[in-house]
Amino acid sequence: MATVKIWTDAEAEADARVKAVFDDIRATRKTDFVNNVWRALANQPAVLESTWAQVKAVMAQPGALDPLTREMLYMAVSISNGCEYCVHSHTASARAKGMTEEMYAELLAVVGLASQTNALVTALQVPVDPEFKV
Amino acid sequence: MATVKIWTDAEAEADARVKAVFDDIRATRKTDFVNNVWRALANQPAVLESTWAQVKAVMAQPGALDPLTREMLYMAVSISNGCEYCVHSHTASARAKGMTEEMYAELLAVVGLASQTNALVTALQVPVDPEFKV
Amino acid sequence: MATVKIWTDAEAEADARVKAVFDDIRATRKTDFVNNVWRALANQPAVLESTWAQVKAVMAQPGALDPLTREMLYMAVSISNGCEYCVHSHTASARAKGMTEEMYAELLAVVGLASQTNALVTALQVPVDPEFKV
Amino acid sequence: MATVKIWTDAEAEADARVKAVFDDIRATRKTDFVNNVWRALANQPAVLESTWAQVKAVMAQPGALDPLTREMLYMAVSISNGCEYCVHSHTASARAKGMTEEMYAELLAVVGLASQTNALVTALQVPVDPEFKV
Amino acid sequence: MATVKIWTDAEAEADARVKAVFDDIRATRKTDFVNNVWRALANQPAVLESTWAQVKAVMAQPGALDPLTREMLYMAVSISNGCEYCVHSHTASARAKGMTEEMYAELLAVVGLASQTNALVTALQVPVDPEFKV
Amino acid sequence: MATVKIWTDAEAEADARVKAVFDDIRATRKTDFVNNVWRALANQPAVLESTWAQVKAVMAQPGALDPLTREMLYMAVSISNGCEYCVHSHTASARAKGMTEEMYAELLAVVGLASQTNALVTALQVPVDPEFKV
Repeated sequence: MATVKIWTDAEAEADARVKAVFDDIRATRKTDFVNNVWRALANQPAVLESTWAQVKAVMAQPGALDPLTREMLYMAVSISNGCEYCVHSHTASARAKGMTEEMYAELLAVVGLASQTNALVTALQVPVDPEFKV
Repeated sequence: MATVKIWTDAEAEADARVKAVFDDIRATRKTDFVNNVWRALANQPAVLESTWAQVKAVMAQPGALDPLTREMLYMAVSISNGCEYCVHSHTASARAKGMTEEMYAELLAVVGLASQTNALVTALQVPVDPEFKV
Repeated sequence: MATVKIWTDAEAEADARVKAVFDDIRATRKTDFVNNVWRALANQPAVLESTWAQVKAVMAQPGALDPLTREMLYMAVSISNGCEYCVHSHTASARAKGMTEEMYAELLAVVGLASQTNALVTALQVPVDPEFKV
Repeated sequence: MATVKIWTDAEAEADARVKAVFDDIRATRKTDFVNNVWRALANQPAVLESTWAQVKAVMAQPGALDPLTREMLYMAVSISNGCEYCVHSHTASARAKGMTEEMYAELLAVVGLASQTNALVTALQVPVDPEFKV
Repeated sequence: MATVKIWTDAEAEADARVKAVFDDIRATRKTDFVNNVWRALANQPAVLESTWAQVKAVMAQPGALDPLTREMLYMAVSISNGCEYCVHSHTASARAKGMTEEMYAELLAVVGLASQTNALVTALQVPVDPEFKV
Repeated sequence: MATVKIWTDAEAEADARVKAVFDDIRATRKTDFVNNVWRALANQPAVLESTWAQVKAVMAQPGALDPLTREMLYMAVSISNGCEYCVHSHTASARAKGMTEEMYAELLAVVGLASQTNALVTALQVPVDPEFKV
């Protein structure tokens, strides 16, 4: 259950600002499916608009990192932050963008290992090597 | 300052278990540089051995994800966990493995965006879409 | 599902220490509703008593910050810590204390932005400006 | 030490995109002081521009929450995320916007209490009360 | 719902690598019960094998800390990381290894207090006392 | 550097409320050493008093868990929360209460392993086994 109303398509159609964002999500992603995060953000049109603008700019434009790598980085952050919804949505997106089971297994191994060594380093308060200085 | 002694090369040479790990780090990485995390873990040989064995297995073997992608995933987790040393060491490693400034900028954009949307989704307690179910 | 029993009113009535806390919660909040966190803490009377004493001292006494501001700070922490129950209970409390939809939208924008810039700053390991020193 | 170069004023003056953002920060805040986070972000102009645009939109425009309340929410998130630089910069900003020692003491009490009850609720896995449902 | 298939006993029996791990879990723990984390990890045999090897080495071998203390430390980390499944499984394990209600109440008190003082210390950015230096 | 003044002994002597807490810390711990967290909290006497009262109640009274176990639980939480000062102070306290190097190595192994499996379980969104239900 959410802390806010999850907007239906009919409700979104009746609000110009929300409709504009939903239309752009559909056009950009080439699918009719609008997932729940946008239906929840619809309650705050300004937050909806700025969030979608950022997601579009960061995730949907060509660049130095390919779309799958960006999606896997999103997964890694979402796992570390313990965000259930985000883990589900970005794991699904990564699979849609070509993440194989072998890649997924390696991502899990890296995320698990990093979580472990992060904890050990924090426990030991390891000083930063001068060699790492910029 | 660390919570434990940071081992010098001389101290490491004098301990068979520590020496074996340090030698393998140097051989695997083809460099004489052994960074501080290993010099801190040297106080607990069993933890040192098992941690290095995992790092070697997860990061140094060929697989479906290229070494730079794995390193950037490590960076993403380290940033999310707020581990200062880990951020420094894995940013340096990613650069050594070919991360350009453009790639770094995109990684920052993804990690920043993910942190933001993770927080929004948690605030709104967005329910998982049935479409994401396996 | 909880890791402990959720106490019913009948069970709470039958235990003098738990009854005393529940009675004080109802008197302080001027409502018969006692939410689940207290029914879960009832299994450990000492933790129940000290937790309620702190909540009463920190949240229910007049001070320099008005009750709604305190509740929104509670929300911000609960979102950052990813505590589902706490997000729900404190969002409901903030609404009961007068948080409008416009305020909620601005709180979400601040919390989202802060989460993003926290991640960027951690990624870049920005040194603290001398101007911020006390 | 940062993972990137901290730009001097001279370097910023010589780059049109960076100069434009620094000029706008100075004009918006009515001070010549540009703190280090912007000097670190200057290495990635696109991230610099979008981050400043968001900070300006979320923190510097009039709205339902007064500037001090927004700054204290920023503090609460920064503390919860353990971001040293952010804690310093936003504590300084909150003081500049009028946070008294009494308000600061109450903020600390709320943030400390919330951190404690978040942990207790997570430990007990307390089920969300139906009364909190939207 | 998981992001991966939860393996049944029949499926595990049909895969040699998974069967070997499940057999060892049952033999080591002296119970036929194999909990869901292993059934989820079964999708990635390499991660399954290395995770079980570590759990067996760290949790099931005699050492300086008794099994209950190790399990309570596992609980403390799992609570701090907000991992629902982990809180449930390790609370159940701690009870199975002899954690009484009185011990549980004290663990809760310590974890709650530590979470609170961690937040206060981070808010105040308390400098480390020279007396704590190794 | 702290966000507040670190009180000297002379300053503490001159303030009745602060002096009372410092005196009690010294009497309870049987040492003249008052570490920095209390000197930072001295700026907010109400927070100082309530925090010390809780620390004394939770950590200094006899109970079902021995003092060293409580201190190691405090360490585990502090590591997971990434609190540098807290890691230092509670590692020092645990050593003072008898934590051997062997115990420390095992604590590190458990905390590292728990951090790793927490991440894996979150990544896979493993459903809670019905067997764990209370």
